[in-house]
Amino acid sequence: AVGLAACGKKEEAAPAAAPTGAAGGAPAVQTGLPEIKWRLTSSFPKSLDTIYGGAEVMANRLRAITDGKFDIRVFPAGEIVPGLQALDAVQQGTVELCHTCSYYYVGKDKTFGFGTSVPFGMNARQMNAWIMFGGGQQLLDEFYANYNVLSLMGGNTGTQMGGWYRKPVKTVADLQGLKIRIAGLGGEVFSRLGAIPQQIAGGDIYPSLEKGTIDAAEWVGPYDDEKLGFYKVAPNYYYPGWWEPGPVVHFFINRDAWAKLPKFYQEALRAAAHEANVTMMASYDDKNPQALARLLSNGVKLEAYSDEIMKGAYKAAFDLYNEEAGKNPAWKKIFTEWDKYRRSQNAWFSVAEATIDRFLQTAR
Amino acid sequence: AVGLAACGKKEEAAPAAAPTGAAGGAPAVQTGLPEIKWRLTSSFPKSLDTIYGGAEVMANRLRAITDGKFDIRVFPAGEIVPGLQALDAVQQGTVELCHTCSYYYVGKDKTFGFGTSVPFGMNARQMNAWIMFGGGQQLLDEFYANYNVLSLMGGNTGTQMGGWYRKPVKTVADLQGLKIRIAGLGGEVFSRLGAIPQQIAGGDIYPSLEKGTIDAAEWVGPYDDEKLGFYKVAPNYYYPGWWEPGPVVHFFINRDAWAKLPKFYQEALRAAAHEANVTMMASYDDKNPQALARLLSNGVKLEAYSDEIMKGAYKAAFDLYNEEAGKNPAWKKIFTEWDKYRRSQNAWFSVAEATIDRFLQTAR
Repeated sequence: AVGLAACGKKEEAAPAAAPTGAAGGAPAVQTGLPEIKWRLTSSFPKSLDTIYGGAEVMANRLRAITDGKFDIRVFPAGEIVPGLQALDAVQQGTVELCHTCSYYYVGKDKTFGFGTSVPFGMNARQMNAWIMFGGGQQLLDEFYANYNVLSLMGGNTGTQMGGWYRKPVKTVADLQGLKIRIAGLGGEVFSRLGAIPQQIAGGDIYPSLEKGTIDAAEWVGPYDDEKLGFYKVAPNYYYPGWWEPGPVVHFFINRDAWAKLPKFYQEALRAAAHEANVTMMASYDDKNPQALARLLSNGVKLEAYSDEIMKGAYKAAFDLYNEEAGKNPAWKKIFTEWDKYRRSQNAWFSVAEATIDRFLQTAR
Repeated sequence: AVGLAACGKKEEAAPAAAPTGAAGGAPAVQTGLPEIKWRLTSSFPKSLDTIYGGAEVMANRLRAITDGKFDIRVFPAGEIVPGLQALDAVQQGTVELCHTCSYYYVGKDKTFGFGTSVPFGMNARQMNAWIMFGGGQQLLDEFYANYNVLSLMGGNTGTQMGGWYRKPVKTVADLQGLKIRIAGLGGEVFSRLGAIPQQIAGGDIYPSLEKGTIDAAEWVGPYDDEKLGFYKVAPNYYYPGWWEPGPVVHFFINRDAWAKLPKFYQEALRAAAHEANVTMMASYDDKNPQALARLLSNGVKLEAYSDEIMKGAYKAAFDLYNEEAGKNPAWKKIFTEWDKYRRSQNAWFSVAEATIDRFLQTAR
């Protein structure tokens, strides 16, 4: 966190010190950088400081490198539109851009899952490779164009945790009738295994778990989960969150607004989004180990999902993917490429990366 | 690679389209962005396109977001100074910055190892977390200040491979007298295990392996290794490269040059370096799987280092670290913090990340 604080201070000081800008009443386009003000609606509340902060990292950097002239104001979820309507607000031009996850919109089309994560998808590095260099950006933006937006990656949480359970679950039979707070495609897979997925807003999860209205709930990872205190009422903490191995957070940008942006500012926005992407991942990686250690010292029981549940969920997920491919051409087009890519990635990551990681995680 | 090509084209077009710049003879500091020309010496040849390309990604982005006014020209290794004298050239002000790896300079002080990688160090994500948020940047820059430079991360290769061997090695006994091309702290660890490390320039490795002047050689990973054709003369390809789990590539910047830079350009350089960091890793992750598949189809024998060799090397490495801590205060200061941080990181990465990765790498 030391690094971030130092960085933030410098960024705030930057515009005043930069030796640029239009003097007097001269036309901005001739003598300096044009002033552009955009609004960004975030899908996240300020309390999720790391994921919400990704938009601020981007906006601060953009101001710092444009002499304060390209000014994006960041609004938390709910101030302009509710968090899950961020895409719609950008599509309609209510705001120029948002910071969200594409998989929040699988209700419109399941194909939205790929941009963030589908169950048993790729990890954070693999998503970067696919989207930046493996053709993913083009495939996804072609799909997003139907919603009048284009996308820039703007963060990642890393593999999330698998949720908080009031009682241990060991077998698929233990999932029958289990009420778990989880949305999207992960929820559909749980449903195929016999559980009953529930959609509950962040603030309502704790009381629902406490009363037993629900049996389990997934959120993010140790750092974010700790804040909501789930460990006090559902101390069985499962891993991994197999429905999101490396979920990408996005900037969705209205295509008309983008087209009006000077090329110079498009390029600056690309650079600032790259920074938000890499620094959010690093920030979560910095904070999660300490949060997990605190949770364990508070009596949390850390449990891996059993092989039976993992394999059952994997089969159910790919059954779902193949069924969807039979009826949704947009899904089929991306799924086919995505599936080839992830297999090739997993073959490579099993060699050097996995071997040194495994050795170091057990070396004493 | 599709993503990179598209990006490069846009960047080249950007300066002409950007509606900025000083008009006529007006003083640049008042009416537009100041023109600054810097030179960067790379430690890499152009043939290593991915690692060399990191400096070009940074320089292209910087031109695109400064209307072409902050212009860093990138020179391959050898054009201004030899690759391994890049730091010296920056320290002395021959050039304003370089693109290199700190661990090339362990001959000056072993402490240079930490910024890139020491044997059994952290993986790429963990290095980002440590340097950006875990206090690493401050610790390292305090040390680098002795050489009149500051550092920005500018790339990563991911866990490298463990080298090409003419004959298989299974035990520490097999390493006795073995001539292996490897430099730095990795070479010192091999030496403690009985091998004889050799320093040989890239172009001389193939003939040395072919003639049997050396028995083994390490280079980078599948994509870079394939180009040099080692598999034809030393087909036993070992993993992992335990001496570099997540080696960071750096921009070292002369502190006097940095201090003279407008704040605005300092901020732009930071953003462009972040982009070079995340895109180099993604580019290697995109290219290595395909290169490994080609190598395997050419008859390469993929082998994991034995547990005996891994454990022997781990013990030898930490013996070396503790001995150095007893006589080198700069090493001791960073080692103490680094060691705490990596332990905490490995404890966390063993939970959600390692579990989903392992599952997906074996799922069929």
